[in-house]
Amino acid sequence: MKKTGMILTFLAVFLSTAGAGEEAPSIASNKTAIDLVQSHADYIWTLIAAMFVFFMQAGFAMVEAGFTRAKNAVNIMMKNLMDFSIGTITFFAVGFGLMFGASKTGWFGTTGFFLSDFSVDGDPWVLAFWMFQVVFAATAATIVSGAMAERTKFSGYIMYSIFITGLVYPVFGSWAWGSLFNGSGWLEGLGFIDFAGSTVVHSVGGWAALAGTLVLGPRIGKYASDGKVRPILGHNIPMAAIGVLVLWLGWFGFNAGSTTAASKDIAMIFVNTNLAAAAGGVMAMITSWIKFGKPEADMSLNGALAGLVGITAGCANVTPASSVIIGAVAGVIVVFSVVFFDKIKIDDPVGAISVHGVCGAWGTFAAGLFNIGGFTGKILAVQLTGIAACFLWTFPVAFLLFKLVDKTIGLRVTKEEELEGLDAVEHGGNAYPDFTTINHGSFGGSDGSGSSKYKPVFSVESEELAKQS
Amino acid sequence: MKKTGMILTFLAVFLSTAGAGEEAPSIASNKTAIDLVQSHADYIWTLIAAMFVFFMQAGFAMVEAGFTRAKNAVNIMMKNLMDFSIGTITFFAVGFGLMFGASKTGWFGTTGFFLSDFSVDGDPWVLAFWMFQVVFAATAATIVSGAMAERTKFSGYIMYSIFITGLVYPVFGSWAWGSLFNGSGWLEGLGFIDFAGSTVVHSVGGWAALAGTLVLGPRIGKYASDGKVRPILGHNIPMAAIGVLVLWLGWFGFNAGSTTAASKDIAMIFVNTNLAAAAGGVMAMITSWIKFGKPEADMSLNGALAGLVGITAGCANVTPASSVIIGAVAGVIVVFSVVFFDKIKIDDPVGAISVHGVCGAWGTFAAGLFNIGGFTGKILAVQLTGIAACFLWTFPVAFLLFKLVDKTIGLRVTKEEELEGLDAVEHGGNAYPDFTTINHGSFGGSDGSGSSKYKPVFSVESEELAKQS
Amino acid sequence: MKKTGMILTFLAVFLSTAGAGEEAPSIASNKTAIDLVQSHADYIWTLIAAMFVFFMQAGFAMVEAGFTRAKNAVNIMMKNLMDFSIGTITFFAVGFGLMFGASKTGWFGTTGFFLSDFSVDGDPWVLAFWMFQVVFAATAATIVSGAMAERTKFSGYIMYSIFITGLVYPVFGSWAWGSLFNGSGWLEGLGFIDFAGSTVVHSVGGWAALAGTLVLGPRIGKYASDGKVRPILGHNIPMAAIGVLVLWLGWFGFNAGSTTAASKDIAMIFVNTNLAAAAGGVMAMITSWIKFGKPEADMSLNGALAGLVGITAGCANVTPASSVIIGAVAGVIVVFSVVFFDKIKIDDPVGAISVHGVCGAWGTFAAGLFNIGGFTGKILAVQLTGIAACFLWTFPVAFLLFKLVDKTIGLRVTKEEELEGLDAVEHGGNAYPDFTTINHGSFGGSDGSGSSKYKPVFSVESEELAKQS
Repeated sequence: MKKTGMILTFLAVFLSTAGAGEEAPSIASNKTAIDLVQSHADYIWTLIAAMFVFFMQAGFAMVEAGFTRAKNAVNIMMKNLMDFSIGTITFFAVGFGLMFGASKTGWFGTTGFFLSDFSVDGDPWVLAFWMFQVVFAATAATIVSGAMAERTKFSGYIMYSIFITGLVYPVFGSWAWGSLFNGSGWLEGLGFIDFAGSTVVHSVGGWAALAGTLVLGPRIGKYASDGKVRPILGHNIPMAAIGVLVLWLGWFGFNAGSTTAASKDIAMIFVNTNLAAAAGGVMAMITSWIKFGKPEADMSLNGALAGLVGITAGCANVTPASSVIIGAVAGVIVVFSVVFFDKIKIDDPVGAISVHGVCGAWGTFAAGLFNIGGFTGKILAVQLTGIAACFLWTFPVAFLLFKLVDKTIGLRVTKEEELEGLDAVEHGGNAYPDFTTINHGSFGGSDGSGSSKYKPVFSVESEELAKQS
Repeated sequence: MKKTGMILTFLAVFLSTAGAGEEAPSIASNKTAIDLVQSHADYIWTLIAAMFVFFMQAGFAMVEAGFTRAKNAVNIMMKNLMDFSIGTITFFAVGFGLMFGASKTGWFGTTGFFLSDFSVDGDPWVLAFWMFQVVFAATAATIVSGAMAERTKFSGYIMYSIFITGLVYPVFGSWAWGSLFNGSGWLEGLGFIDFAGSTVVHSVGGWAALAGTLVLGPRIGKYASDGKVRPILGHNIPMAAIGVLVLWLGWFGFNAGSTTAASKDIAMIFVNTNLAAAAGGVMAMITSWIKFGKPEADMSLNGALAGLVGITAGCANVTPASSVIIGAVAGVIVVFSVVFFDKIKIDDPVGAISVHGVCGAWGTFAAGLFNIGGFTGKILAVQLTGIAACFLWTFPVAFLLFKLVDKTIGLRVTKEEELEGLDAVEHGGNAYPDFTTINHGSFGGSDGSGSSKYKPVFSVESEELAKQS
Repeated sequence: MKKTGMILTFLAVFLSTAGAGEEAPSIASNKTAIDLVQSHADYIWTLIAAMFVFFMQAGFAMVEAGFTRAKNAVNIMMKNLMDFSIGTITFFAVGFGLMFGASKTGWFGTTGFFLSDFSVDGDPWVLAFWMFQVVFAATAATIVSGAMAERTKFSGYIMYSIFITGLVYPVFGSWAWGSLFNGSGWLEGLGFIDFAGSTVVHSVGGWAALAGTLVLGPRIGKYASDGKVRPILGHNIPMAAIGVLVLWLGWFGFNAGSTTAASKDIAMIFVNTNLAAAAGGVMAMITSWIKFGKPEADMSLNGALAGLVGITAGCANVTPASSVIIGAVAGVIVVFSVVFFDKIKIDDPVGAISVHGVCGAWGTFAAGLFNIGGFTGKILAVQLTGIAACFLWTFPVAFLLFKLVDKTIGLRVTKEEELEGLDAVEHGGNAYPDFTTINHGSFGGSDGSGSSKYKPVFSVESEELAKQS
């Protein structure tokens, strides 16, 4: 087809469609339409990513329940469900405004409470963005739940849960991720790199968890009077393993969704996330094999999580090869860190402080060190500033809050309640009534024959039939 | 750059690309290309949403199995697998045509059986739409399974399952959601608001479940001869809790996917869905705490589901703040409703009638009451008409069908089979052969030592080795 | 609006926006922008699909662990975690380059190792494509894990796992799916149809599994000295069932994601995938009902998987109705195939050889037979060539590798270790320490009272309290 013919064709098509009225295309209206389609792609990507991050709640619940005892499994499910439910309401009312509202000072936002700024211009992007952020806030809260498992009073935990999603997390978040509306956070202003939240989400959760476990103290029997560390085994390792795979899955949404845009950039984030997780799992397995003589499941699983936490800050600004290194180092760190916290008698049933706190700090530093454009002293200094700021804000505030809860409504259950198990005591029912289990908490010892207190005592059908006959 | 220069550049680019032949862009061809990209976004959003709704099958299976006894867990898995498998084939052959085929009368469709209308114009949208709808149809069927758990004959259940996906659900669906081709349903014509199916899916499932439980009668031992209600505890509460999280996840696809388009509208639907679920969970927990003295897991979990069912009708036409209220009310309703049905001795092991039937009705009414543009008496009257029409169609037809099955191939297993457990009787194997469990159904009573019939009896390795030695 | 008015409006809008500078739209720049938005849609679809395929790792782990004994559940989780973790690193380093690197000969690729070609042009599509392919490679590896369950040495398995993702799978893959860069595979050149990998992924996994089980031999006690086949029951059928639903979910990503493009074509692939799975499940249930007297759960579940494997090759080039037939036939085949392999004493705990090997071959043949454009003798011959080539490459190479591992570091654990269970022996911990279980491997027999070796022996809390008092 010749050029002139083409132009004629073009004009003919244009004129014919132009006559169709308001919807006739023009170059400018086409441009607007293209922007709209791109924005639709941004919406679906961001919201689908939010779904996967939401699913991480199930992953955390499985990991925490699997790595702890059967007698507390219902309690863990309830804590996770309520973390998210209460966290949603709190973040809707207060947290989102503090974190992403217009910020004059760079220290916290002051608009957007109850999603009020949504109605101002009618652009629903605030809603999409809120949805993506609420699942992040809940993640920070859930991390704490694991470290405090098996001895925390339910009402006390709920109280704390409100404060982390309503205050602790959003305030630090506003420093690093600034405002959706006007202004930006002071850390962001320095050039702090934390793309998806190694520090903002994971270290906040990890340091709050550290504060919680310190206020609570260790579980009965964990650190024996003879000075030895006694393992308190989880009741369902396959559940924990599936939980880790669910978290790994959700993490693609966590990291790549943090673009909040459908762009080509997500590809590298996916690859980096996957490589770091894999390297973390492999290295933790090898480290445990060397250190303990066997490739241990709990260490390998935590290694994969450590790799994921480690790559979260730098997933968008390091190369795939660097991601392998970042994840591998995280996988080694987590093993030594878990052993270290046990040595200083800080009882963290699932290793949350090591995985999220320590490896979050490592990942944030690594995001500077392996920066794809090279690193400078200033970059590293800013990264260290962010890491320190996170600890200095989160740990004392969380510690104070836990102390406050402890002195008022109480943070820890009684010795008898802990032995009996939180499920029966706090929620009035056991997790597995049909199964004969060994209650690690029965005073009289457990001989494995199912003679413990934790035993279903009813047989409704047979009792009823006996009466009828 | 000056305007004239810009125009010259434009012409130069245009002419150079125009010469490339057939693919040279024009304003009109660009418009067509934009529409195509938007349509690709619609396809991927609708189909990804369908995947999440499909995943709800796993959620339902986990909730139902978790809330019932170990001896019936295989049966529940089989019912859910076959609900979906047989439902898929039935909806392919009959249901889709009845529901979305061209409808002259507004009472049912008459084309599109076996996806036949797909071949007419070759537009694969019918296929994408079918995929989204088949997972909805299966949801309605699965709801019934929970209420009828632990005593239904497998062959009888399959028979019924065919009728709900092939007749009961599609006919009501055609009234409310009209036709994909020509014509529309009579309820739709009145202006009935049920965006994602509080009534169309959930109440249909709930009222069919009510009919089923009435025909079946309660489980042995549930309502004791002394007049007391005896709890029959579920065997795996963590599994049920994870199931609820999976359902919550899937519900984002259920509600926001009902746009069947990649648009900005999905953001508000996500936020509303999440807020209602959270409010439902929190309020049900609080209600159970006040009413029973403890924050109960089963009530809290059902509260989240109640919030989700409640917001399903109005998720696209109420504000986030209204969603909190709708969900919160649903969370309170569900607790009282579960207690009510137990009082009138309707035995619903998982609370499906309350969650899906009752809260579906509430949600449908609330969609009118909290309508973002305000409500009128007419709107509320139409909503009530839809709610009533659903009950008046579903309950009698389902009741009749269940009676028919009962009189022919049988709907309930024998007393002995119920005590033994459906897994062993119907499927020839238990769910957990490696574990010592307490069979609530053993006539001789269960002492917790694992002396029941439900016990693995083989040890293949040791027997074989004994012979060899 | 008149045509001339429209043109004036167009010019006015154009000129006004043109003045805005570099971003002023032109027809050509709009075209480029449209292509970019389409490419963003391609990225998000391909990467979301990759997430769902990744999730299949959890599905496989649940199916394998559920269908085997409690004493080996941790080992299965570890194998699956490491399959994917080590597979990721191996595919990054070697596999991807062999499979998709530039191929001069058509027999294997020689570029792209360590994702090196990513940096050449900076187009991140290679990264998105790699992400989608790495989850496929890991799937092939995981299939083998199931067939070799309950008796394989962990270190030996890891060794093999490296070879399948680094050599066996990528080399065959390069024949059928050619190169991402230059050149194409010899099978692809013949016109071989295997859209999503019935042969490339599933048969490769299946035939490698066959080689593995042959080298390993059957589990102790499976084939009794009296000639009878003794069932070794799985320990958690609900977990296996949920695993199948997860696999079904992931398969939508597996098949429809293989377009690696957001297009309308994915709709038919979804529908075909779903219909085949449903038909497979239903037909396997009916077949088992007729053959064994009961609708068996394990057969029904494997039937759904068989239908999925069967439709994988032809999902993009057969009609929905053909998909029902392909799935139904696969559902019948799998039942007879499982019985057949048991008859010839090839011990495959989860039926992986039948589901993936045999039904993969059937699906590949069916993709030719039911080809939407009709089939020719040549088409069928090419399909048979591909099926044969897969077996002739995979089986001998895998057999040799397994033999090599067996002779060096060892492939099978000792008799005592097998009886004790791999969890305790290989990983130093049991899957369910809180539960009384029956160890099928205790020499002294198992009486169900929990008196076996596989019993938790600690009660840390009570011991500690006893000391303190």
